[in-house]
Amino acid sequence: MKVGIGILGAGIVGGTLAAKLIEEADAIEAKSGLVLDVVKVGVRNLGKERPFDLPSDRITDNPEEVVDHPDVQLVVELMGGLEPAGSLVKRSLEAGKPVVTANKELVAAHGLELNGLAHDQGVAFLYEAAVGGGIPIIRPLSQSLAGEKLTRVLGIVNGTTNFILTKMSEEGAAYEDVLAEAQALGYAEADPTADVGGGDAAAKAAILASLAFGAWIPGDDVPRTGIDGIAVEDLLRADDLGYAVKLLAIAEEYEEGIAVRVKPTLVPHDHPLASVRGAQNAIFVEGPAIGELLFSGPGAGGDPTATAVLGDVIDAARELLAGAQVTPPVRFQPSKTLADGQIATRRYYRLLVKDAPGVLAAIAEVFGQHGVSIASVWQEGTGDDATLLLITHRALESEQDAAVDALEGLDVVNDVAAVLRVLIAD
Amino acid sequence: MKVGIGILGAGIVGGTLAAKLIEEADAIEAKSGLVLDVVKVGVRNLGKERPFDLPSDRITDNPEEVVDHPDVQLVVELMGGLEPAGSLVKRSLEAGKPVVTANKELVAAHGLELNGLAHDQGVAFLYEAAVGGGIPIIRPLSQSLAGEKLTRVLGIVNGTTNFILTKMSEEGAAYEDVLAEAQALGYAEADPTADVGGGDAAAKAAILASLAFGAWIPGDDVPRTGIDGIAVEDLLRADDLGYAVKLLAIAEEYEEGIAVRVKPTLVPHDHPLASVRGAQNAIFVEGPAIGELLFSGPGAGGDPTATAVLGDVIDAARELLAGAQVTPPVRFQPSKTLADGQIATRRYYRLLVKDAPGVLAAIAEVFGQHGVSIASVWQEGTGDDATLLLITHRALESEQDAAVDALEGLDVVNDVAAVLRVLIAD
Repeated sequence: MKVGIGILGAGIVGGTLAAKLIEEADAIEAKSGLVLDVVKVGVRNLGKERPFDLPSDRITDNPEEVVDHPDVQLVVELMGGLEPAGSLVKRSLEAGKPVVTANKELVAAHGLELNGLAHDQGVAFLYEAAVGGGIPIIRPLSQSLAGEKLTRVLGIVNGTTNFILTKMSEEGAAYEDVLAEAQALGYAEADPTADVGGGDAAAKAAILASLAFGAWIPGDDVPRTGIDGIAVEDLLRADDLGYAVKLLAIAEEYEEGIAVRVKPTLVPHDHPLASVRGAQNAIFVEGPAIGELLFSGPGAGGDPTATAVLGDVIDAARELLAGAQVTPPVRFQPSKTLADGQIATRRYYRLLVKDAPGVLAAIAEVFGQHGVSIASVWQEGTGDDATLLLITHRALESEQDAAVDALEGLDVVNDVAAVLRVLIAD
Repeated sequence: MKVGIGILGAGIVGGTLAAKLIEEADAIEAKSGLVLDVVKVGVRNLGKERPFDLPSDRITDNPEEVVDHPDVQLVVELMGGLEPAGSLVKRSLEAGKPVVTANKELVAAHGLELNGLAHDQGVAFLYEAAVGGGIPIIRPLSQSLAGEKLTRVLGIVNGTTNFILTKMSEEGAAYEDVLAEAQALGYAEADPTADVGGGDAAAKAAILASLAFGAWIPGDDVPRTGIDGIAVEDLLRADDLGYAVKLLAIAEEYEEGIAVRVKPTLVPHDHPLASVRGAQNAIFVEGPAIGELLFSGPGAGGDPTATAVLGDVIDAARELLAGAQVTPPVRFQPSKTLADGQIATRRYYRLLVKDAPGVLAAIAEVFGQHGVSIASVWQEGTGDDATLLLITHRALESEQDAAVDALEGLDVVNDVAAVLRVLIAD
């Protein structure tokens, strides 16, 4: 059974996908029964060399030609970014053509609308590759675990930051040096803001949370703290205390609403996420019936991502041929999310303090006034300056923030040098 | 949208599922848009207490009443065993009713026929819970990774044996003692043969291999060695050498055919499967494009298994309402498998030998005559007896077996005390 495929964007993932569809056509047909015919590929620059072999009349620099071509029955969007990708996806769905995308930015920003449109049109809108690259996580969350009331999803969903944190921690190297190395190796972009600032992870966190809790959460609603300028000192101290520092996407459902966060977080060494090294990604799912599930693998890269896209293409093509829509099954509802400050978490603080009698008492009093109870304290240093490490019990983020403000006003506190979340693992 | 459900078997999983469907009906409807109405439950003993609340006319001890009931649109088979489960599943599919099952024995033995029948009838036949309990692995293999030519699947798919091996290794306890403890805790059955003999793992290995390679492999074709009577000495020695011993399901595709095995195997400590402890299950998937993926979680238990079954029920119900069949997508073909002896593997040997000059040379010569090259040797002991540990390079299993026969004929060899596979992890 033949299905005409249109591909928007022929960068690393798009080029790999087109090459796969062309070169592995026989294997794909043998395994799936489908002939996936690349009808049209939309590129930005017609003159560029491509890793796939197609007649020139199948390549265009006008993306609307791809969407509108009568033989294109299914559109794969791999351009990235909000526009023109968003308009083209919408145009495809409105024409009744199923869409597969790896564009986490688009799905996080407009997933509610695009899922709804696909639902109304009765066609598939699939985005397995948008989170976790080659790790199958979207389908397990939306299908396999459809019968579970999930309580929490934790993810290491940005390979660049995990690479940087792993290197810093293992080699005791400074953030700036490791970032420069990551850029030289191609693990980080020249402008690394989306990765190190937490924006990429926030988009993925929003998608994971939406699927886990069945209510759409816009990416912009996700409070995020990146790892930009994180001190290697805190990674090493955390390690001594029994923790690895990871940039975690954390999605939790509370009675009051859904809390989604991206925060550098202390993860106990014996937790499976603590041992996820380098550019690997991993997603940890918790629920009352299933307990704990871990999915890990390559979070990025042309080959793994194109493989995930191809899995979606095969599914969407099957649904198209069957004339039925099995995914997306429901119209998502918009969701109420809890803003920064509104949930209770544990925290790690590194304070630079004067080494004088009564300092600890003064600090403990400030925390106490804000209802923050201290779980452990380590103090070191002599002379004028000392370093105080504190790990608190669970307390409202807003109270902890107020405590930080108050601490900064204390004479005996020179600096609140680090504030990190601590994972409550239980 | 309402779908009438019939459940065959109300043991731990069936009872949990029925209770879930009844008690969590509102949550299931909110998340999936489906009203899953438990029309009829087939039980063995009408008098037994059940964990779910249903009018007595919805419970029967005649399983055909469940399948044949006009309001039952979808059948969930949770009786286990080959018969009468097999005939009932067939009867359901023949009546055009989709089937969800957790019965690995049935799927491994008759998957080819049942998948084909479901395909011809245009209805779903789903069995996510048959392997890995609550871990979503069937759907990722058959859908998300449909575009990948997988090369190898490795699994710890039997919780009982992993519990026993973990305990033995961590506590230095003997097999018999740990088995007795596992039986007391309910982790092992009174007759543990299916678990410790490798039969349960072999059925799951056959299913994993079939989905990974797209060609059906009967469970009976899987050569298996269990852990029955495994010596704690080998677990401790393996640990010293840098390995954990795990009962692995190993499915590999060679040019000559597919090799599926269940063997106690030395796994390097830095491999993700080495740290899977206790009753946990894990599946490790390898392919050229996706690299390495790990799925881990609870491999058994009423709650996780019922959750996996419910995910399938929701999918099957959606397909039923959509009037289309998306899974299973293809008619599987029977497959050629490589019998015991036909593949090249690395091995660990523990030999009890006379402590005399020239012993090692004599042993090395025997291995050499069979084309088996030795990678490492450790010798210990003084006096008459010594222990020799050997790890070989990759060599044909049949040649290695012939070398063992020859070694047993040597005067200087008192006993070939242990033969274990060694994972080639690259």
